[in-house]
Amino acid sequence: MTRIAICAPATAITRDHAAAMEAFVAAEYPQHSVWFHDQCFETFAHYAGDDLTRLNALVECANNPEFDAVWFAKGGYGSNRIAQAATARMNDAAREKTYVGFSDMGYMLAALYRAGIGQPVHGSMPVSARSERGRGALRRVLNWFSGDASGVEPSVDGKTPTVAFNLITLAMLVDTPLLPDLTGHVVMVEEVSEHLYAIDRLFFSLANTLPRLAGLRLGAVTAVPENDRDFGQTPEEIAKFWCDRAGIPFLGRARIGHTADNHVVPFGVASPPQAP
Amino acid sequence: MTRIAICAPATAITRDHAAAMEAFVAAEYPQHSVWFHDQCFETFAHYAGDDLTRLNALVECANNPEFDAVWFAKGGYGSNRIAQAATARMNDAAREKTYVGFSDMGYMLAALYRAGIGQPVHGSMPVSARSERGRGALRRVLNWFSGDASGVEPSVDGKTPTVAFNLITLAMLVDTPLLPDLTGHVVMVEEVSEHLYAIDRLFFSLANTLPRLAGLRLGAVTAVPENDRDFGQTPEEIAKFWCDRAGIPFLGRARIGHTADNHVVPFGVASPPQAP
Repeated sequence: MTRIAICAPATAITRDHAAAMEAFVAAEYPQHSVWFHDQCFETFAHYAGDDLTRLNALVECANNPEFDAVWFAKGGYGSNRIAQAATARMNDAAREKTYVGFSDMGYMLAALYRAGIGQPVHGSMPVSARSERGRGALRRVLNWFSGDASGVEPSVDGKTPTVAFNLITLAMLVDTPLLPDLTGHVVMVEEVSEHLYAIDRLFFSLANTLPRLAGLRLGAVTAVPENDRDFGQTPEEIAKFWCDRAGIPFLGRARIGHTADNHVVPFGVASPPQAP
Repeated sequence: MTRIAICAPATAITRDHAAAMEAFVAAEYPQHSVWFHDQCFETFAHYAGDDLTRLNALVECANNPEFDAVWFAKGGYGSNRIAQAATARMNDAAREKTYVGFSDMGYMLAALYRAGIGQPVHGSMPVSARSERGRGALRRVLNWFSGDASGVEPSVDGKTPTVAFNLITLAMLVDTPLLPDLTGHVVMVEEVSEHLYAIDRLFFSLANTLPRLAGLRLGAVTAVPENDRDFGQTPEEIAKFWCDRAGIPFLGRARIGHTADNHVVPFGVASPPQAP
C-alpha cells in the first residue's frame, strides 16, 4: 500500500485528468491510493495557483505523515519558483517520502536531492493517465511503488549514483542553490521542443560547468523545431562532441524523455520500496 | 581613420550584405575602412565555416596590426564554440583593438572582457547594412568610431562599469571560464524569440547566480512567441520580480535589443576613440 498525494508545483491539470488517473489506479493498482490536492486544478496566469498557493499545497502533501509519496501532477514551468522555499519548510514526515516527476519537476527533484530529503525519482506524471501510451509509462512508476523495478531505466546499475534531468532545466540550475553535487554520477538528459543549436548551446553550458561525472547518457530529444538551415549534427553527435571536449564519458542513450518510453530513474542509488 | 576588419565567428553573411556595408561606409564614413575576411561567406552546416576556420579568421583579424577594430558580421549561434580558444591566441595587436557585436557575439565580448583584451562594445552588426533602419543602428557604431558618443545607450554614465548581453547568452555563460566578474556593474539584457516563461526561467538563473550588481536594465524583448496561455506578467514585471527577489536594483529600461533602436554599450567604462 502506497498512499500517494498529488499536487502541481508548476501548471494545472483538469478534473478529467484526475478522474482518469483515479480510475486507472483503482482498476490496476488497488494496493495503492491516489489523492489529488485541490490546488492541482487552480489556475493563476501560467501556473496552477500563485507561488504561495503552490508552495503551501506542496508542503502540506510532503509534511503529512498519512502519505508515503508525493507525485507531481504535471510539468510545464514554475517549480523553480518555489523549490527552495519548499525544502526549507519540510519536516521529518517529508524526509520519509518518495517524490516522482520529471521535466520542469527537475527543479524539485534537484532541490530535494541536494537537501537529502526523501527519495526523488524521475518518472512520468498523472497528467498522462488519459492515454494508453501514457498509462504505459505510469505503470513503470506504479510498479516501482509495488517493489517491482522492471520499469527502471535499463542502464541503471544499482551501484553508480544516477540522476535524470531535462536539459534546459539542468542548465538553469547551474551555480544555483538548488543544484546538487553531481560528482561521480551518471547524468541522463532529455529535451523536447528545442532547436538543435539551442541543444548545442545547453551542452556548451554543461560541458563547462558539470563536475567530474561517471558519465552522461542522452535520452529522447523530441519535437525539434524546423530551422532555416540544417544544423549538421544529430543530438547524439552533439552530446558526444561536448562530452569528448569536457572529458565526460559518453555512455550512450537512455530510455527517458517526453515519450511513452520514459523510464523510472531513482536519484542516487535506490531500490524500489519493499512490497507489502 | 578606423581600419575595421570584419569576420563571422557564428553564422555567415552573403556578398550582398558585404557590398551594402562597403557602399554605406564609403558614402557616409569615408574616414573609416571596412575589410571583409572571406570567411564571412563560408558555410559549414549551421556555421560560417567549421570551428577551426572561424577561429583562424577571427585570430587573423585580431592579431593583424593593420586593423584598429574587429566588427563581427552577424550573430546567430556559434561564437561560444571558439571564444576561449580565440582569446588564448591573441597577441599585443589584438589587445589594442575595439571589438563590436551583440546577440550571440556576447560570448566573444564576455571572453574578451574577462581576458582584458581590447575594448568590447555591444553594437549592431554589418549584416544590417541593407536596410535604412539597420543603417540607422550602424551609424551609432560608426559615429562612436569617429569619437562621437551620441549613439551610446543614454543611461551609460561613464562612471559605472556597464555590460550588455542577450539574456540566454548571459545565462549560458554562468559559471563558465568565459564569464567576467560583473560585480559592481550595470548589466543590460535583451531578448528575442523566447517565450515569456523561458524569460522568467532565465531570470531565475541569473537572480541566483549574478554577483552584487550596481543594477540591471531591461532592453527590448521582441518577437515573443504566442503560448497556449497568457503568462500573466510583462517582461518588465518579470525583470522587476527577480531583481527584487535577488536584491538587484532594477534601473528601468535600456535602449538595446534586436531592433533598429539598438544602441552602443562600451563594456566597462570607456570613451569613444579619439577623432583623428
